[in-house]
Amino acid sequence: MFEKLKRILIGKPLPNEAEKTEKYGVLWGLPILSSDAISSVAYAGQEILYVLLPAIGFLAFKEISVVTAAIIILLFILMLSYRQTIENYPNGGGAFIVAKDNLGVLAGIVAGAALSVDYILTVAVSISSGVDQIVTALEFLKPYKIALCLFLVLFLMIGNLRGIRESSRIFGIPAYAFMFSILVLIIAGYIKLRMGYVPPEPKVNYSPHPVTLVLLLKAFASGCTALTGIEAVSNAVPNFKDPATKHAKTVLLLLSLVILVLFGGTTLLATHYHIVPTEGAMLVLMAQEIFGKSFMYYVVAATTFIILVFAANTAFSGFPMLVAVMAKEEFVPRQLSLKGDKLSYSNGIIILALVSALLIVAFNGNVTALIGLYAVGVFISFTLSQSGMFVRWFKNKGSHWHIKAFINGFGALTTFVVVIIIAITKFREGAWIVVLLIPLLVFAMIKVKLHYIAVADQLRVTPADKELLDVDHNIYRNRVIVPIESLNKASIRALRFAKTISDNVIAFNVSINEEQAKKLQERYKMLNCSIPLVIRYSPYRKILEPLLEYIKSEEYNYQKGDMITVIIPKFTVQRWWQKILHNHTWLFIEKELLKHKHIVVSVMPLQLKDDDVVLKKKNKPLWKILEED
Amino acid sequence: MFEKLKRILIGKPLPNEAEKTEKYGVLWGLPILSSDAISSVAYAGQEILYVLLPAIGFLAFKEISVVTAAIIILLFILMLSYRQTIENYPNGGGAFIVAKDNLGVLAGIVAGAALSVDYILTVAVSISSGVDQIVTALEFLKPYKIALCLFLVLFLMIGNLRGIRESSRIFGIPAYAFMFSILVLIIAGYIKLRMGYVPPEPKVNYSPHPVTLVLLLKAFASGCTALTGIEAVSNAVPNFKDPATKHAKTVLLLLSLVILVLFGGTTLLATHYHIVPTEGAMLVLMAQEIFGKSFMYYVVAATTFIILVFAANTAFSGFPMLVAVMAKEEFVPRQLSLKGDKLSYSNGIIILALVSALLIVAFNGNVTALIGLYAVGVFISFTLSQSGMFVRWFKNKGSHWHIKAFINGFGALTTFVVVIIIAITKFREGAWIVVLLIPLLVFAMIKVKLHYIAVADQLRVTPADKELLDVDHNIYRNRVIVPIESLNKASIRALRFAKTISDNVIAFNVSINEEQAKKLQERYKMLNCSIPLVIRYSPYRKILEPLLEYIKSEEYNYQKGDMITVIIPKFTVQRWWQKILHNHTWLFIEKELLKHKHIVVSVMPLQLKDDDVVLKKKNKPLWKILEED
Repeated sequence: MFEKLKRILIGKPLPNEAEKTEKYGVLWGLPILSSDAISSVAYAGQEILYVLLPAIGFLAFKEISVVTAAIIILLFILMLSYRQTIENYPNGGGAFIVAKDNLGVLAGIVAGAALSVDYILTVAVSISSGVDQIVTALEFLKPYKIALCLFLVLFLMIGNLRGIRESSRIFGIPAYAFMFSILVLIIAGYIKLRMGYVPPEPKVNYSPHPVTLVLLLKAFASGCTALTGIEAVSNAVPNFKDPATKHAKTVLLLLSLVILVLFGGTTLLATHYHIVPTEGAMLVLMAQEIFGKSFMYYVVAATTFIILVFAANTAFSGFPMLVAVMAKEEFVPRQLSLKGDKLSYSNGIIILALVSALLIVAFNGNVTALIGLYAVGVFISFTLSQSGMFVRWFKNKGSHWHIKAFINGFGALTTFVVVIIIAITKFREGAWIVVLLIPLLVFAMIKVKLHYIAVADQLRVTPADKELLDVDHNIYRNRVIVPIESLNKASIRALRFAKTISDNVIAFNVSINEEQAKKLQERYKMLNCSIPLVIRYSPYRKILEPLLEYIKSEEYNYQKGDMITVIIPKFTVQRWWQKILHNHTWLFIEKELLKHKHIVVSVMPLQLKDDDVVLKKKNKPLWKILEED
Repeated sequence: MFEKLKRILIGKPLPNEAEKTEKYGVLWGLPILSSDAISSVAYAGQEILYVLLPAIGFLAFKEISVVTAAIIILLFILMLSYRQTIENYPNGGGAFIVAKDNLGVLAGIVAGAALSVDYILTVAVSISSGVDQIVTALEFLKPYKIALCLFLVLFLMIGNLRGIRESSRIFGIPAYAFMFSILVLIIAGYIKLRMGYVPPEPKVNYSPHPVTLVLLLKAFASGCTALTGIEAVSNAVPNFKDPATKHAKTVLLLLSLVILVLFGGTTLLATHYHIVPTEGAMLVLMAQEIFGKSFMYYVVAATTFIILVFAANTAFSGFPMLVAVMAKEEFVPRQLSLKGDKLSYSNGIIILALVSALLIVAFNGNVTALIGLYAVGVFISFTLSQSGMFVRWFKNKGSHWHIKAFINGFGALTTFVVVIIIAITKFREGAWIVVLLIPLLVFAMIKVKLHYIAVADQLRVTPADKELLDVDHNIYRNRVIVPIESLNKASIRALRFAKTISDNVIAFNVSINEEQAKKLQERYKMLNCSIPLVIRYSPYRKILEPLLEYIKSEEYNYQKGDMITVIIPKFTVQRWWQKILHNHTWLFIEKELLKHKHIVVSVMPLQLKDDDVVLKKKNKPLWKILEED
């Protein structure tokens, strides 16, 4: 039944050979890789206003330009720094790899943990913000906000389990549509102002504060979310057509310019239009003032919504891939590196969906609340990645390496300062969760890795093991115990099988009282079986303990090297509901026995036929069978 | 961990010998067996008013006497009828046994199903009504009604799992306390009226209806819940001191008189005091009018609450016992006849708690809503039990058997008419659920019984089976397959063991691609092992299917009678979290292979040591181990 449901939702499984990727150039590389980065335009500017407006009121519309300018400078520092990463890692330079390569395992793990947290928040923030756009434009949907968010996460999960290929060109169209609609918004906005339009003065309730550095830094920290996703290009270098490195660098430069125009343009426009984003999403409110509730208004809302969903989707391909890389290196459970039926990393996809859905519910889909957790992780991975590049130049040198090292070093230093700023100014707004979580994840990942090392150590085949294989098998005794509950076909089959694998077999029974024991003994005698029957009493109605005690007893005379096979007779029924009708003690016994050295557990099944088939043979009406029993 | 929690909640396990029952005479038999029956006084009268008041307003206080009189007549018919059951079933004459004995299996099953439903409703109704008493007296508890109900169910469940002995005399005290406090209430009430007290006229909103027969029958159906639990005495005959039958009959007579006084007295008193039980529980409201909020007021509320909880508790011993009897006769899963650590039928107790808790939540702890479902089941079992007795007289005859048959026959007829009345008048108020549920349960029970018959048929040892045991084991080939994922200590141990149980062993591997296969083959060659290695490819990353295909293939040359042992190498880890780090494909493979005839599954465990122990042996700091890997 589960299998059927899975087929309907996920579709038919794909063979390994079905894997391939479409490569792209600049034209499609830009939109495909940019959705995460450019979609942040939808919330970054608005979040700056959220910090400033309640503190300094209308002054906010002045100070926002300072903050925006700082973020755009940071953008270009990052861009220059990452261009060098692209050049040096033509196979993809994710923070995990760059940090691990150049700074050591620990740095790699930290970057991996930070990035994982970042991906999860990308989904939570993008989906929440996307739904914000929708419910701002279509107010009647407001009560269903959380339901809409969860639906979208589910939709992305199933889509990705089915194996959406992110590299497909269709995924580029929404990014271009978004860029286009926001450009139109900015241009139309300025034209309207030039034509003498005076935006209405909104009411802002605020308790006046002086403009302090702390306030500006806090706003800056919120705005830094505009830069999340910019690293996507450097991860994806191998997906570009040749010359891949060159194409990737061009795309990164173009992407930075796009962010400059869209982010700079919209935040500046907001200062002129005095947008107060408490009533809804900033871009949609702005579109309303500029276009009224016309066609273009809905275009802005729709394209913003779609680009945000696509941004969440990039996390659905990025997170499972990152986790799979870490799983191959054994920092997380190895199963996460296994591909599902559709060749997607199903486990990673499901984990991402679950955790981000949980976050959305916990924070009630509130973008501002989620923003507090965001960006810390991203900037930690930026810092580690750039530091790694910095160290790399010192090792590898090369032409002009001093300048290149300076660029990466400066990038690392700047992003490190930003990490500190965000962690401190946003600490109480949620950054503390991430600041606590990342070390915990790192600790867990180290524990996991050490476990796998310890397991590999113990599983490694030694020369002594090889010799054991050659040894004549008379050297150890093969002994068999068949626990029987009663005398039936299943137990007789097990006894018979036992005789074929060893000459040292006993049947073992646990009785509740002597009467029951006597009955069994008598029936057993009638079998004329050469296998001795051992009976033990258990006042506590247990089976396992008496068996283990018996094995340890002098009577059994267990000797070092003896191998005991416990053959459990079992019968399997035809239908699921029939399983409920039989006890499953054997499962428990198997599990417990497997904890003991030199015990092998064999399960000997007897497949029962369907009830109807058996009862039909009796050639009697059902009520008669019932009455007679 | 689960084991620890269980010990704290349930206590230490008891050996079988700990079982014994205290026997009682009339003095303690009456209160111990009466709690279910007399506690219904707390809701039966009130439920009659609930039917009448909204329809006919103050006329209700007149008509209630008619309805009460009818119920009391019914009570004495039942009493006479059940006295005969006691005499004929000194070992306990539950409806299930009496019906099965005299009317056949089907009637027994129907009675069993009806009684099961009845027990579940006893818990739901008694607990809900008990909490009603409390929240009427202590209004601030009203918002926590459902939580209180669920807490009480949990409390009874744990108490019964720990093994409360119902026959203990302490269990008699609350019943006497309740009888005493209600008697005082009735007497004080009449004295107060005699002394000239005029109760205030409450406001009753109602749309006037004529007094129709249907209305009176509906009220009668609600009031019949007063008679639930009266059968308890006939079930418990063997718990009485000798002469048991005589003692039991006396107790039944006394019990009927007690109900007559308490039920008759309180409902009549309610007519004088014009109690409108919409604001709370009738008995408590009446106590308030008679005593004011004095000490006696709280005594009435407390004793009523306690007797209702005790009534629920009788279901906690009755239901598991009934279910255990049915389990021994294999109409329900046999595990329900197994006793838990404390010699109580744990599974039955847990099921009762869960289902009744669910009912309480579903019906929001509303007694009136639950009453709709109640009584149908009880009266079905009354009818079947009395009909059984009726038929019995015709078979067994004896002195004055005509009169005795007439008494039981009349009882059966009356209760049958009541079943019809309740089922029709309460159909839309919930009786339909029970009317639907009982046939479903009966159907399920027949299916279960037939399954057990079919299983027993197939497990029965035939002479042919006995011969098989004597046969020389060269007659069938014992072949072994060891599926290996890679070459490690676990797989080598499994191969070594395989050699000791058969000369026909192969190692089997499923590779995803040729490269992987080649590597394994080379490593395997170096082992110099005489066991051949078979490799198959699986494009869909599956293991089970290629193995089964291989067994069917000509290459393997499976011949009828061959027994294939599949030895699965496995390793067990020390801590629970480490389990997450390894896949559990072997469990799935074991489960699937057991569906195939002539395949025995053996699991060969390798117990891994604790990580710390292994890593310490490396004599290196942890970070170095990490970096080197």
